[in-house]
Amino acid sequence: MMECKVIFTIARQFGSGGRDVGKKLAESLGIPFYDKSLIQIAAKESGIEESLFHSVDEEPSNSFWDALTINANIFGSLTSTYSSMPINDKLFIIQSNVIKNVAAKESCVIVGRCADYILRDEPGLIRVFVHGKEEDKLHRIIHQYGVPEADAKGLMVKTDKKRSSYYNYYADGKWGRAENYDLALNTSALGIDGAVELIKRYREIKCNK
Amino acid sequence: MMECKVIFTIARQFGSGGRDVGKKLAESLGIPFYDKSLIQIAAKESGIEESLFHSVDEEPSNSFWDALTINANIFGSLTSTYSSMPINDKLFIIQSNVIKNVAAKESCVIVGRCADYILRDEPGLIRVFVHGKEEDKLHRIIHQYGVPEADAKGLMVKTDKKRSSYYNYYADGKWGRAENYDLALNTSALGIDGAVELIKRYREIKCNK
Repeated sequence: MMECKVIFTIARQFGSGGRDVGKKLAESLGIPFYDKSLIQIAAKESGIEESLFHSVDEEPSNSFWDALTINANIFGSLTSTYSSMPINDKLFIIQSNVIKNVAAKESCVIVGRCADYILRDEPGLIRVFVHGKEEDKLHRIIHQYGVPEADAKGLMVKTDKKRSSYYNYYADGKWGRAENYDLALNTSALGIDGAVELIKRYREIKCNK
Repeated sequence: MMECKVIFTIARQFGSGGRDVGKKLAESLGIPFYDKSLIQIAAKESGIEESLFHSVDEEPSNSFWDALTINANIFGSLTSTYSSMPINDKLFIIQSNVIKNVAAKESCVIVGRCADYILRDEPGLIRVFVHGKEEDKLHRIIHQYGVPEADAKGLMVKTDKKRSSYYNYYADGKWGRAENYDLALNTSALGIDGAVELIKRYREIKCNK
């Protein structure tokens, strides 16, 4: 039904409901939605164990992983520069290619994983950042994600720190800075449905320009 | 014509066209628009020389101003805590009161001057941040604002630094971080008119909730 190809990337604070916004947006437009599912595709396409992708998902390179001895066979067919890379960086490259491939095919929604940066040259890109008030995020983390109240704040801070380091390590800008996104939204002010509606309106304006 | 009172605050990168967005938005909704004009009101209401407000406009406290001996008569009627404040802080308080007063009256658009932070408890507040690609901002600075090409980049960087320090000094958050705003927009992607249209749509969603 879409005359105009658009790739939505959704970066989001933990607990902001950004994933829900992306999922509802994709459903409402009838286009594919990708989040952790990208990992399955990346694992399948690369032949690398899915659990390895999960263990470094949205985490930047660090000394632990840098020091890890990698099974040389996995990367044996690649260049020597590539072989000497930390494993997170290799998985990042594999996942980047998966992201570029799904984006090349058709309109879609991609959550997290630096997709806004990876797809920065894509003309149909709409880079969204979703955030919210701390009290609303904690409420969602506890009541919707089922995290015990005592752990919610710590998990929220830690998850955003990880996302931020991952982004700041691989992308050019700083995670959460407005200038990296075409549209940044506050779900505490708009609600999930309001956010979806506004993003759809953004798409219409962009497609009718 | 507006059934629902809304105060739009527009923070903006220099050259992004944020002021134009605010002005067009105000015109289109038939509501007052405030930017530097707030200074005239502040000067008139406080009896302080307008040039003094201009000289510290969107600049944080600094040692130069801190060291300045202020005419004691100006602040004579105020508390001693207030009297010992740096002059920028006093002017900030005076201007904050002007901003609160104009916002209390009716729907309006206010550009810059930490209005998003000053009005943070206002229920009808919509905090907007406007940014753009460097090349587009430079083009606007040179061709629309008439700044010589050789000075454009320096002025852009310096102006944003000033705005950022002013905001970071007086507000709680960091200028330009998505989480401080309800809506952050990229005029390079949307254009001025597209930005105005999206902000109006935001208002409709908020008012119909």
